[in-house]
Amino acid sequence: MGIQFQIVAGDPSSAARAGLLRTAHGTVETPTFMPVGTAATVKAMTQDQLEEIGAQIILANTYHLDLRPGHDAIQNLGGLHRFMSWPHPILTDSGGYQVMSLKGLTHVTDDGVWFRSHLDGSSHFLSPERAIETQLALGADIIMALDECVEYPASEESLRRAVSRTSRWARRAKQYFDAHRAEVPHLSLFGIVQGGILRSLRAESAEQLMELGFDGYALGGLSVGEPKALMYETTELAFQQLPADRPRYLMGVGTPEDLVEGVARGADLFDCVLPTRNARNGCAFTSEGKIVIRNARFSRDPSPLDPACRCRVCQRYSRAYLRHLFVAGEMLAAMLTTYHNLCFYLDTMREIRQAIVSGKFRDLLVKARARTANAGGSEHPES
Amino acid sequence: MGIQFQIVAGDPSSAARAGLLRTAHGTVETPTFMPVGTAATVKAMTQDQLEEIGAQIILANTYHLDLRPGHDAIQNLGGLHRFMSWPHPILTDSGGYQVMSLKGLTHVTDDGVWFRSHLDGSSHFLSPERAIETQLALGADIIMALDECVEYPASEESLRRAVSRTSRWARRAKQYFDAHRAEVPHLSLFGIVQGGILRSLRAESAEQLMELGFDGYALGGLSVGEPKALMYETTELAFQQLPADRPRYLMGVGTPEDLVEGVARGADLFDCVLPTRNARNGCAFTSEGKIVIRNARFSRDPSPLDPACRCRVCQRYSRAYLRHLFVAGEMLAAMLTTYHNLCFYLDTMREIRQAIVSGKFRDLLVKARARTANAGGSEHPES
Repeated sequence: MGIQFQIVAGDPSSAARAGLLRTAHGTVETPTFMPVGTAATVKAMTQDQLEEIGAQIILANTYHLDLRPGHDAIQNLGGLHRFMSWPHPILTDSGGYQVMSLKGLTHVTDDGVWFRSHLDGSSHFLSPERAIETQLALGADIIMALDECVEYPASEESLRRAVSRTSRWARRAKQYFDAHRAEVPHLSLFGIVQGGILRSLRAESAEQLMELGFDGYALGGLSVGEPKALMYETTELAFQQLPADRPRYLMGVGTPEDLVEGVARGADLFDCVLPTRNARNGCAFTSEGKIVIRNARFSRDPSPLDPACRCRVCQRYSRAYLRHLFVAGEMLAAMLTTYHNLCFYLDTMREIRQAIVSGKFRDLLVKARARTANAGGSEHPES
Repeated sequence: MGIQFQIVAGDPSSAARAGLLRTAHGTVETPTFMPVGTAATVKAMTQDQLEEIGAQIILANTYHLDLRPGHDAIQNLGGLHRFMSWPHPILTDSGGYQVMSLKGLTHVTDDGVWFRSHLDGSSHFLSPERAIETQLALGADIIMALDECVEYPASEESLRRAVSRTSRWARRAKQYFDAHRAEVPHLSLFGIVQGGILRSLRAESAEQLMELGFDGYALGGLSVGEPKALMYETTELAFQQLPADRPRYLMGVGTPEDLVEGVARGADLFDCVLPTRNARNGCAFTSEGKIVIRNARFSRDPSPLDPACRCRVCQRYSRAYLRHLFVAGEMLAAMLTTYHNLCFYLDTMREIRQAIVSGKFRDLLVKARARTANAGGSEHPES
């Protein structure tokens, strides 16, 4: 059956919408944030804890899982859901982004990507077909077509070449997927729009993907160093063009501000390593902005990470204790901070969704922008 | 008020007994195992998880906490219970064991121990009074007198000197504690019996401590490399001599077999880093013996760590998944294995206690010994 997507509310002043994404492993309330579970584990979190904080869908990285333990091993163990004991929705990426990030270890051709494993240097080949084959074996609910990612800044020529290649690869991915769809009826395939921050290329890329017809559409190649204003503008235009009845996924984005701004431009799904990676480095997201817990000023601070947060960590532990754990190099430091940060992200998404449903998204957006401005933080162009 | 200890059942065929150890922070059902929370955290466990597996009392290391974040910092934050958000019983050691393990960084005199911090090389002095002062500031429910630990094997002369010094230090600790008891009425002080594996010295040490009168008694300097038969024999004789109405603590012990054998000889309290440290190294304790999870034979094993275990980890995750987590170096590997191992230890203690209460401890002991013999494992002399 694949996924089914239903829009249940929309904000009249923006492209924000609330939806229900039904999968064979449960329903996802959108917009939502997907915690990143690279190696079939969201680092420093148990699956029980992910359920506790209300994570509805997580992302896993095909590249990492294919190298270790291997997609065949996971398939033999009943697929990714059973392997990691996560009976809820999962999205896997194509592996392309990771492969193309392996500086000096990658060679991209029209046929696919040759790369060397970062683990043992062994040589591998990733093609559009192979990316689908691997993901079919993993058996996530949503899988991604292989795309070519380009660094920022990039020449128009290289962006154009990447768009063209991404479209050709998308066609091959779709063909391979359609030929095997009957074997894995619960899977759905998303295409990825490329084109950097060039309007015309994004439009061309979106157009070509829409001709192929995917179950959902993602924007790739954003949040890679371009100015935020351009990222938001590109997101807005691309999502405007894509079919409104399909889920829209803003890949690799972003900060808490980016979530609100992304939703305002029509995004339904987000993923980003920020809340988990920052947590391990001792950086917590709070309603008052980011704090670096290791800072000496927290050494005698009995208050929680975020006084406005109702998560288990903020109900139980002090900044002083968390600082001590980081200074002492204790694993619990990363565990508790990851828990809080993910909770903060998911709470943010729940608030956003609630605001859309109750017709108050505009208010939320205005408040969020005021907060960002007060924090002297990121740019926040008008939508 | 300090602790109150009540024996509720005894095994007629051995020195095993079941008791209730009442503290200002709750009642501990003995015999029990105390997870080790060196730096005010049981490594890789949240306090919620410790509660979930039924840990009733944990141990924290004075040496580590005094160096970082400092006993004054913890006192200012409301004491150890509040600092680490563990409102249940806590026992702190004196710091002596850690200090005397700092090879080449320690100088022991009759007055106390000079040592250099393993963190920054700074010079510190630990005396019987200072050990109590620090522990009073931390505010655990049970605190320990400073003793002199001797390595195994040791000459009779050095053991005799250590016993003598331990008794003199115990007197000073007791005096200092009594002088300050009114300030911290919930604390109780345990003395530590030394004497290696020499019967006469152990008897002498026990006698001298009993003259001083402690709230409970511990056996130190065991499980340091001596043959198990001697460790068990020493434990048995020493506990026989100590007052039956006071809790008995077998320090740093031990393996699952040691727990059963220790209880048979009268032990009420245990602590050991084995379940937690082994977990981080990929070694799990199971009802069928120890398993090394990283072993390739588990790579496609869908069964839980221990099919007989009812813990959350065994209910949810496979050996294949755990092996993958270890091979991939993921934090969740240590988290899940620690959870299971501690659960296994606490379940073992709960079974032991239940057997004592229901008059079936002898059966349990016989079965445990048969299991150990079948595993081709440790020695298990008759009690």
